[in-house]
Amino acid sequence: MTDAKEKALAISKEKGGKIEVNSKVEINSMEDLAIAYTPGVAAVSSAIAKNKEDVYTYTSKRNLVAVVTDGSAVLGLGNIGPEAAIPVMEGKAALFKRFADVDAVPISLNTQDVDEIVSHIQAIAPSFGGINLEDISAPRCFEIERKLKETLDIPVFHDDQHGTAIVVLAGVYNALKLAKKKISEVKVVVNGGGAAGIAISKRLLSAGVEDLLLVDKTGIVSSNDPDIEERHKEIAELTNKDQLQGGLEKAVEGADIFIGVSAPNVLKKEWIATMNDKPVIFAMANPVPEIDPEEAKAGGAFIIGTGRSDFPNQINNVLAFPGIFRGALDARAGDITDAMQIAAARGIASAIPEDELTVDNIIPNVFTPGISDIVADSVRNTVANN
Amino acid sequence: MTDAKEKALAISKEKGGKIEVNSKVEINSMEDLAIAYTPGVAAVSSAIAKNKEDVYTYTSKRNLVAVVTDGSAVLGLGNIGPEAAIPVMEGKAALFKRFADVDAVPISLNTQDVDEIVSHIQAIAPSFGGINLEDISAPRCFEIERKLKETLDIPVFHDDQHGTAIVVLAGVYNALKLAKKKISEVKVVVNGGGAAGIAISKRLLSAGVEDLLLVDKTGIVSSNDPDIEERHKEIAELTNKDQLQGGLEKAVEGADIFIGVSAPNVLKKEWIATMNDKPVIFAMANPVPEIDPEEAKAGGAFIIGTGRSDFPNQINNVLAFPGIFRGALDARAGDITDAMQIAAARGIASAIPEDELTVDNIIPNVFTPGISDIVADSVRNTVANN
Repeated sequence: MTDAKEKALAISKEKGGKIEVNSKVEINSMEDLAIAYTPGVAAVSSAIAKNKEDVYTYTSKRNLVAVVTDGSAVLGLGNIGPEAAIPVMEGKAALFKRFADVDAVPISLNTQDVDEIVSHIQAIAPSFGGINLEDISAPRCFEIERKLKETLDIPVFHDDQHGTAIVVLAGVYNALKLAKKKISEVKVVVNGGGAAGIAISKRLLSAGVEDLLLVDKTGIVSSNDPDIEERHKEIAELTNKDQLQGGLEKAVEGADIFIGVSAPNVLKKEWIATMNDKPVIFAMANPVPEIDPEEAKAGGAFIIGTGRSDFPNQINNVLAFPGIFRGALDARAGDITDAMQIAAARGIASAIPEDELTVDNIIPNVFTPGISDIVADSVRNTVANN
Repeated sequence: MTDAKEKALAISKEKGGKIEVNSKVEINSMEDLAIAYTPGVAAVSSAIAKNKEDVYTYTSKRNLVAVVTDGSAVLGLGNIGPEAAIPVMEGKAALFKRFADVDAVPISLNTQDVDEIVSHIQAIAPSFGGINLEDISAPRCFEIERKLKETLDIPVFHDDQHGTAIVVLAGVYNALKLAKKKISEVKVVVNGGGAAGIAISKRLLSAGVEDLLLVDKTGIVSSNDPDIEERHKEIAELTNKDQLQGGLEKAVEGADIFIGVSAPNVLKKEWIATMNDKPVIFAMANPVPEIDPEEAKAGGAFIIGTGRSDFPNQINNVLAFPGIFRGALDARAGDITDAMQIAAARGIASAIPEDELTVDNIIPNVFTPGISDIVADSVRNTVANN
């Protein structure tokens, strides 16, 4: 077991989890009690009963996010159930507070039925200013997110899909600045046809990528394929316009950007030589990437990013979700739209001044001071301008 | 508007509600991040996946209580809905933390259907170590509590019913010490046939009271009454053994203890003279009690308690619920039983040493240092001894 894992067990046991709920008001006298509770609280409740919108003025709803899971797809551990998912939800809540002063509560649901999950989240929604879906397996996560977005008047965001996609887009923006290429002119290969790969593909397409191949274990996804999987039908219509057939080797020929959310060591060094000039490699399989960064460099990669903190250019969703919710909550946004997510990516990219951009510095470190504020500002401005 | 109400509005607006969710772990480096989140958190999740009971060892579940309402019976404000109920739930959460270091989360549900409420609470239960029901109207609250107690393996407690009842019992214990009477020999009149009155009656009966009359607006509740309300049928079987008929005036004749959870000024001074020797009056209608304490004293009352902090002997449920949950959580109790509630009442009563008991000091002040620890110890010992 690694050091981090041993320490995580020790600290979780010692502290009894990673979060606590504190009072923001002092209660040290009968007068304090009369303000925090009855009879004072009756005035606050009455004000909201008179004008429901005042719930955002007077309560924690304006800063409170539910981090909701059903425990069906927890990290790489799979369907381990609601209890075992709690440490991840708590970790997320701790990051929300640390990076964007958002108050977040772990809610682990005791069901994996799509409609039941939707119904439970709808029921608890009055208390919360936003819903962060987490570690829910595909394709259920798509339907749950869609139904909640349609019915709730607070922002709903499935971080596993959109968080990483936003940081990838931020990396693409900065990589293209260094490579001096336009987003509308590059060819992108996304390897890995799961929820993350599909979300990344959609994010890049909506940001202006026009030539994109999604590659799954069975090869390049194509709308001509009679055996196409249900989950790939929508994305197949938007990608692979030339109906290319073949595997990853074929896909990366002439590509400008490779994005892997797949499996260890599936990208061969020799294939990089077949890519376009100044090839960009984001190899995010964890902990072992699609290609070792040193090997990718030896193969001719111009820029390399991974999911790991011990290599340059870490693609870490911690850059995105705290600031996105900070911005959405501050703007009282009813949704987290495509435009807000693209703005968040631009915000992350802009956190590195152009004169500091290098091939080893296209994605900011998560501890860059003010990074979540930059993201939040970008998101807030997008809401304000719409 | 009173000072407390104005201040409650001002502070709620300034702070955005009364609670916040904090991280108990420092996150200031990549190493910290690896412990609080991935990859470290995977070890914690794996441990719980292997042994579900470890959720109590490693997560916030062991100290986290959901304060759940549907907004149907909020304070004296009635059915004001889930959003307007949030300030009360937040106040409760603030008190939980202040008085017993319990982490509590307000959950305001967007439905008032009994089965839906039960289903939603069952669904979110994995995250929580206990459920505190709050401000749910009768008789729905009875059914919701019963169904949850039957199906959940964590403690469920409807504070509006049981919290006040426990503090009343504590007051009765100390009042009887001063009056030198036995609980099995006193006649008790409970005025007010709502959820609180029924709960107080049941608590006193289970603690050893044998002669009890419950009085509602229509008079003394009697199992012989052909027009008896559905909600009174169970309690009618346990009370009024002589099938007395009449109103409150008739009921209090010869009574040792009057307990009011009813309406202002319904108890006449002259009636106190018809009570037994050393009559005890708990007049808890708020803010105007069933009889003014000064008038009650003039009428011959031996001990007077109210719900107000500006008179002696305040019957305040803040004495009960924090310590009860502290004890139940520490003991990993699966329920909050009658025995635990009676133990809590004895604990509250014992917080005033016998040589400090006076007619104006039978119920401890909520700010008595260590009061919740005393209650928690009593509850924990009861669990340990069963």
